[in-house]
Amino acid sequence: MYRISAKELTAFCKEVLIAASLPESEAAVIAESLVGANEIGVDSHGVTRLSDYLTRLEKGLIENKTNLEVIKDSKATTLYDAHNGWGQYAGKIAMEKAIEKAKLYGFSISGVRNSNHFGTASFFAKMATEANCLGIVMTNASPLMVAWGARNPTLGTNPLCIAVPTNEHPVVLDMATSTVARGKITLASKNGESIPEGWAITKDGKPTTDAQDALDGFLLPFGAKGSGLAMMIDIMTGVMTGSLFGEDIPLMYSGSEPQQLGHIFIVFDIERFMDIASFKKLMDERIRQTREGSPAEGFQQVLMPGDIEQMKKERADQEGITLSEAIFHELSELGKNYQVPFLQNDF
Amino acid sequence: MYRISAKELTAFCKEVLIAASLPESEAAVIAESLVGANEIGVDSHGVTRLSDYLTRLEKGLIENKTNLEVIKDSKATTLYDAHNGWGQYAGKIAMEKAIEKAKLYGFSISGVRNSNHFGTASFFAKMATEANCLGIVMTNASPLMVAWGARNPTLGTNPLCIAVPTNEHPVVLDMATSTVARGKITLASKNGESIPEGWAITKDGKPTTDAQDALDGFLLPFGAKGSGLAMMIDIMTGVMTGSLFGEDIPLMYSGSEPQQLGHIFIVFDIERFMDIASFKKLMDERIRQTREGSPAEGFQQVLMPGDIEQMKKERADQEGITLSEAIFHELSELGKNYQVPFLQNDF
Repeated sequence: MYRISAKELTAFCKEVLIAASLPESEAAVIAESLVGANEIGVDSHGVTRLSDYLTRLEKGLIENKTNLEVIKDSKATTLYDAHNGWGQYAGKIAMEKAIEKAKLYGFSISGVRNSNHFGTASFFAKMATEANCLGIVMTNASPLMVAWGARNPTLGTNPLCIAVPTNEHPVVLDMATSTVARGKITLASKNGESIPEGWAITKDGKPTTDAQDALDGFLLPFGAKGSGLAMMIDIMTGVMTGSLFGEDIPLMYSGSEPQQLGHIFIVFDIERFMDIASFKKLMDERIRQTREGSPAEGFQQVLMPGDIEQMKKERADQEGITLSEAIFHELSELGKNYQVPFLQNDF
Repeated sequence: MYRISAKELTAFCKEVLIAASLPESEAAVIAESLVGANEIGVDSHGVTRLSDYLTRLEKGLIENKTNLEVIKDSKATTLYDAHNGWGQYAGKIAMEKAIEKAKLYGFSISGVRNSNHFGTASFFAKMATEANCLGIVMTNASPLMVAWGARNPTLGTNPLCIAVPTNEHPVVLDMATSTVARGKITLASKNGESIPEGWAITKDGKPTTDAQDALDGFLLPFGAKGSGLAMMIDIMTGVMTGSLFGEDIPLMYSGSEPQQLGHIFIVFDIERFMDIASFKKLMDERIRQTREGSPAEGFQQVLMPGDIEQMKKERADQEGITLSEAIFHELSELGKNYQVPFLQNDF
C-alpha cells in the first residue's frame, strides 16, 4: 500500500495526460476528476482509469482534444457534440452552461452527444451545489447489464446523480443502476470467492454465484426498478441527445469503435422557489431527522446520501490517498512510458 | 367480482365528489385519475381511495375546493400553493403550466406546496407525452418507510415517474421507492400469509416475515439506493417547495392535520434536441432492442416500462374494470351516503 497526497497525484495525472498530447485545460479537469474519485473512495472511477483512457487514446478511439461544438442552443437548453473528445471536459463545460442558464431561466438542461466515459457523475453535480443550485447528472454506458428479465445486455450500469447544497457538505446521491459495481465481482473472482445471487447472470442467462461465470456473463439491474431507471437514463442521455444507446454502444475495453456516449446535466436555481438561506435551514432539519434516527439492527448509524464519501474525503485530505500495489505499479509504468516521474523517492 | 366500464365508473366517482361539494372541474379530474389507476391495474391508487379522500374531507382535513395560488413565477419555473386542496387538480394545472413553459423555454419545472395525495404520478407525466415532451413527476408522502439502516420512519414511499412519447403508447416508469407497496403486505396479512424478508421491519427495527408485525412496523426502501432516491425526492418535493417533509408529514389515515405534501412536475421539450419524428424513430429501435431480447430463465418476455400497464388498460377498455366485492360495497355505501345511485341494476 502506498500513500500520496491528492495534490501530488493530481499533478502526476495531469502531466501524464499532457505528455499524451492533451491540452493542459483538459488534462487538468480529467486529473481532478480521477483523483476526486479516489478521495471519496470511489476507486473504480479513480486513477486506475488513467491507463484505460490512455490505451483508448493510443488506439485512436478517442481524440486527444475535445472539439466541443454547440449543436442546438435555445433558452434553457443546450446540446453539445463532443466529437469523440473527453467526457470529463465536455461535461464540465456543459454543466457550467447549465448553471449559467439556470441563473437566467431558473431551470436548465445541457445534453452532450458523442462523448466518452466522464468519470464520476458527482464531479459535475457538485459544481451546481457550489452555485447554490440543485444538480442532476446522468450518463449512459457500455452494455454490460441486462434489462429486467432479459439474458442479453442492452443497458449500461447507467448512473444517476443528484446533489443538493446545504450548510455543510452537499447531500449527494450517486448511484449506478446495477445491483453492484462490476469491480466487486472482479475482486471476488481474484480472491476466489463466490458472489451472492442477484448480482449477475451467466452468458446463458442463468443465475450464478460463481464470480468468473458472472464476469463472462452480465450484470443484473437492482431489480425491475433499477432496470426501469437504467432504461429511462439511456433514453434521456443516449436517445434524446442523438448518441448511441443500448446494445449499440461499443464496449469500453474490448470495443474498437468510439463509444459515442450521451450525458445530461440538469440545474435548478433553488432561489426560484425559496431564498437559499431558508432552504439550507430546512435542509439542516432534513439532515437532523435522518442522522438522529436510531439505527436498525445491524447498523451503527443512519446517514445521508454522500456522508460516507465525505468522511472518506476528509480522511484522504488528512492522510493522503491510499494506492494498492497494483495501481502504484500501473502508474509507475505510465510514468515511464510518458516520461513523467512518479514520486520515486517519496516512500 | 363486478365489472363496470371506465366511463360509468368515472361518472359515478365524479357525481359523488360533486355531491360532496367539490366543483365539477375538480371532481372530473379526480374521478379520471382514480379510474385511470384501476384501468392500468394500479388498484391501490384507484377508486378504493374515494372513500379515504371523502373521510378526510368530512373531517375537515382537506378543502372541498382547491384555491391554487401562484407563489413564485419566473421564466422556466412556477411555484404553486395548493392551500390544502386536491393533489390531482393542483397537479394537473401545475403540469399544464410546465408544458406551456417547456414550449417557451425548452425545459420547465412546476412545484406545488401544501397539497394532498395526488393519485398516480403517471397521470401527469403522460400529459407531457401528449405534447411530445418528456415528463418527470415526483411527490413526497406519509412517513411509512425507514431510511436505509434506520428503525424510525422519516420517509414516504416517494414515487418517481418518467414518461417518454413514442410512436406507440408512451414508455412510462412509475415506481415507488419502497421494496413493495404497503398494499401487498395488507393482502398477505388478510390471507394469513408470511412475507419475504426485505419488505418491512417491526416497530422495534427488527427484520420480519410476519405480515401483521410488518403492518405495525414500517416499510423498507428497496435497498440503500431506494432509500437515497426517496430522500432526494423528499428534498426536491417537500423541502424545496416549502411543504412538510420527512417525519413531520401527518399520516393520511390516522393523522388529524393537513398533510401539506409537495410535488414537482418537470417537462422537457424534446424538439430542442432533435425533431420529434427522428426521436420517435430512435425510440422504435430502443423498444425493439428490449422486446426482442431473449428472456432469462423464469421469464416469458422482456418488456419496456409501462408495457404491463398498457396491456391492462387495453383489457380494461374491452372488458371493463373489475371491482372486488369489498370495493363494490364500499362504492355502493358511498353512493347511498351521497345519494348517487351506483348502478344497482347493471349486474
